[in-house]
Amino acid sequence: MRMTDLIAKKRDGGVLDTEEIRFMIRGYTDGSIPDYQMSAMCMAILLRGMDDREVLDLTMSMMHSGEVLDLSPIEGVKADKHSTGGVGDKTSLVLCPMVSACGLKVAKMSGRGLGHTGGTIDKLESIPGFSTSLTEEQFFDNVNRHGIAIIGQTADLAPADKKLYALRDVTGTVPSIPLIVSSVMSKKLASGADVIVLDVKCGDGAFMKSPEDAEELARSLTRIGRLAGRKCAAIITDMDQPLGFAVGNALEVEEAIRVLSGQEEGDLLELCLVLGSCMLTEAGFAASDGEAREMLLDAVRSGRALDKLAEMVEAQGGDPEALRHPGRLPQAAYRYEVPSRVTGTVSRIHAEAVGLVSMKLGGGRATKTDTIDPAVGVVLQRKLGDPVQAGDSLATVYASDPDRGAEAVALLHDCFEFSDGPVARPPFIRKIVRD
Amino acid sequence: MRMTDLIAKKRDGGVLDTEEIRFMIRGYTDGSIPDYQMSAMCMAILLRGMDDREVLDLTMSMMHSGEVLDLSPIEGVKADKHSTGGVGDKTSLVLCPMVSACGLKVAKMSGRGLGHTGGTIDKLESIPGFSTSLTEEQFFDNVNRHGIAIIGQTADLAPADKKLYALRDVTGTVPSIPLIVSSVMSKKLASGADVIVLDVKCGDGAFMKSPEDAEELARSLTRIGRLAGRKCAAIITDMDQPLGFAVGNALEVEEAIRVLSGQEEGDLLELCLVLGSCMLTEAGFAASDGEAREMLLDAVRSGRALDKLAEMVEAQGGDPEALRHPGRLPQAAYRYEVPSRVTGTVSRIHAEAVGLVSMKLGGGRATKTDTIDPAVGVVLQRKLGDPVQAGDSLATVYASDPDRGAEAVALLHDCFEFSDGPVARPPFIRKIVRD
Repeated sequence: MRMTDLIAKKRDGGVLDTEEIRFMIRGYTDGSIPDYQMSAMCMAILLRGMDDREVLDLTMSMMHSGEVLDLSPIEGVKADKHSTGGVGDKTSLVLCPMVSACGLKVAKMSGRGLGHTGGTIDKLESIPGFSTSLTEEQFFDNVNRHGIAIIGQTADLAPADKKLYALRDVTGTVPSIPLIVSSVMSKKLASGADVIVLDVKCGDGAFMKSPEDAEELARSLTRIGRLAGRKCAAIITDMDQPLGFAVGNALEVEEAIRVLSGQEEGDLLELCLVLGSCMLTEAGFAASDGEAREMLLDAVRSGRALDKLAEMVEAQGGDPEALRHPGRLPQAAYRYEVPSRVTGTVSRIHAEAVGLVSMKLGGGRATKTDTIDPAVGVVLQRKLGDPVQAGDSLATVYASDPDRGAEAVALLHDCFEFSDGPVARPPFIRKIVRD
Repeated sequence: MRMTDLIAKKRDGGVLDTEEIRFMIRGYTDGSIPDYQMSAMCMAILLRGMDDREVLDLTMSMMHSGEVLDLSPIEGVKADKHSTGGVGDKTSLVLCPMVSACGLKVAKMSGRGLGHTGGTIDKLESIPGFSTSLTEEQFFDNVNRHGIAIIGQTADLAPADKKLYALRDVTGTVPSIPLIVSSVMSKKLASGADVIVLDVKCGDGAFMKSPEDAEELARSLTRIGRLAGRKCAAIITDMDQPLGFAVGNALEVEEAIRVLSGQEEGDLLELCLVLGSCMLTEAGFAASDGEAREMLLDAVRSGRALDKLAEMVEAQGGDPEALRHPGRLPQAAYRYEVPSRVTGTVSRIHAEAVGLVSMKLGGGRATKTDTIDPAVGVVLQRKLGDPVQAGDSLATVYASDPDRGAEAVALLHDCFEFSDGPVARPPFIRKIVRD
């Protein structure tokens, strides 16, 4: 079998068979197929497409390129969640304790952030003492005992995807649905959960610019998940502003605590209720979305959801009192308001730009080796559709030095757009995809 | 400017501007743009296409990646010819002396063969003493004095094309009209001729399988040539069998002599008359194709065409007597006939397979460092449409050892296909393209 022939086959619109896809991924992983052939193949796949059987084969081949976690030592139904990325996305910090409080098992390996989006691991590490480095045995043991554990990725999951993603990033071959699906699902399948829910972002800052593309991606992700024998659902959400209010590591933990304890409502709570409902119904823990939603709201109102987060924090060496007294979380030395220059209605908040402001404050990494300042970031005071008077604060900047703080204030003005009249917003959750 | 952005632009169907194309070819030539980005770009170009302005910019950028010959020291109209490749293609050996005998100047740099197609240089070197290595000064001097010289490529013409072609060959990106046109024309333009005629092969063994694709390629080649300020015409010919009868270096020189001296008619002579007519009319040496054809036939009948070849051979150190007495050309030690096993009509001769037989006999190179045996090869005794009785010879094998000879005989049987009834052939010359 020769890679050149496989490239020509896909180039001419052909369908690659199972053996051909295995040969390609095995060869690319072991280095016998060079980057320049794989990038031509990726472009051919991007422009010619793949059918479900090909995407499933690609996903399974990439999944089997490395370790595959066996979660069978954990009793019960194991659930996992994936988001296609976003600014201020602290969903895992809220959703995982909520569904764990309802009886689902959450054994989650999560990533660090790079660029303008933060990683769940970075956010959790802003809690004093919290450790994200457990052995596999401790990890399983914690989930069996407490129903939840979130750690950094230790296992060598889907190394083919790691190599392929780095190549796609520099060859214009990222926005291909078959390639995105196999990338996401190879890692999720290797992580071993029975139930997988996916949050597909849609909008300017996301991979998928249009609702149609986002729906196609969501349907493909769930189809491949089901074909691989997992319970699977996806929701499509708008990314026309940051999720919730806080952007920055400790600031996002504080916001997660507010939502888990019922003190904050809005798009973040709604997103967690919808994702959580999908998890509970897919797992068979609830007969309907309505029933599932009630279970989740009850976990919040009763305090069990926040208790579950505290239990996890304590089990992983962190200070659970920091959740009751957020003053114990890292605090920024300087605070600045961003007063509006105009009177009107907020019509747009550039999420990616807000993420970059937080990164420049020290809250994110420009390169892999940068260290993060957990205290800094931005908290929005106004969101889409909110009326604003000139002089009202649009956002609060949390900085560790005045120069960076002043720069952040200046940059944040440009993150907002305003309108004279009322602003019509499409629903934040555009669609739930289950088939 | 970032190559990733250029790839994404072409991927999405955009048009690359002049500066972008220059950046890309300069970067690829100097190594700052890696193979894996260029191969993704080639696949995007193959599947998305390029408009004439882009192809012209690509051609000119590749032409200027190396030396550009200045033929102005040569007086008169300089003509050149290119073929998209074929088995038994000794056209240059016949055409160049014919048009030179009619007053056109031929200053031709030619290549060596690799794989199943032989190179003009290899064929000429089977003439005892003939040298294809002249200095540029000798080369120009010979053309001024004798009207013709054919040498190996000494100048570093279009190095970007050399690098790019090697990449395309292993990434499934050869059959793209914009990429073929820029590859062919960058070298032809750098070679400096005023009049360029192109022989575009069409059929199973050629890049272009269908007449429609071949015509599109021919039209694009001539348009780009004209946009670059040259006189240009192309013809489309069928490649459903080897050209002429002989395949093998000295054997092809013998056939060229037969055609030049009026002893052989058929597709090879016809091809040279049509290509030559295009050259003479484009150069303004004849008012019509009919007039040009008469000029060329007169050069053959009068002996001036063969004399011109002898003059060139002598001027480049070869033995002109070898042309009058082909026994002086290298002779193979063994000859074998290939008797037909069936009675019928020849319906197909697999040109590529016959080329491979000649290569295995020692007449071609499998790798660049192989040396060639000039004496060996195959002479067809039957061509398409010819009736055959069982036992008739289909071909004669010229071998330097009996084992290889026996193998060639066995392989040649499979190169022929037969039909019971008459065989309808499409016209050998499908079309002449002038605009």
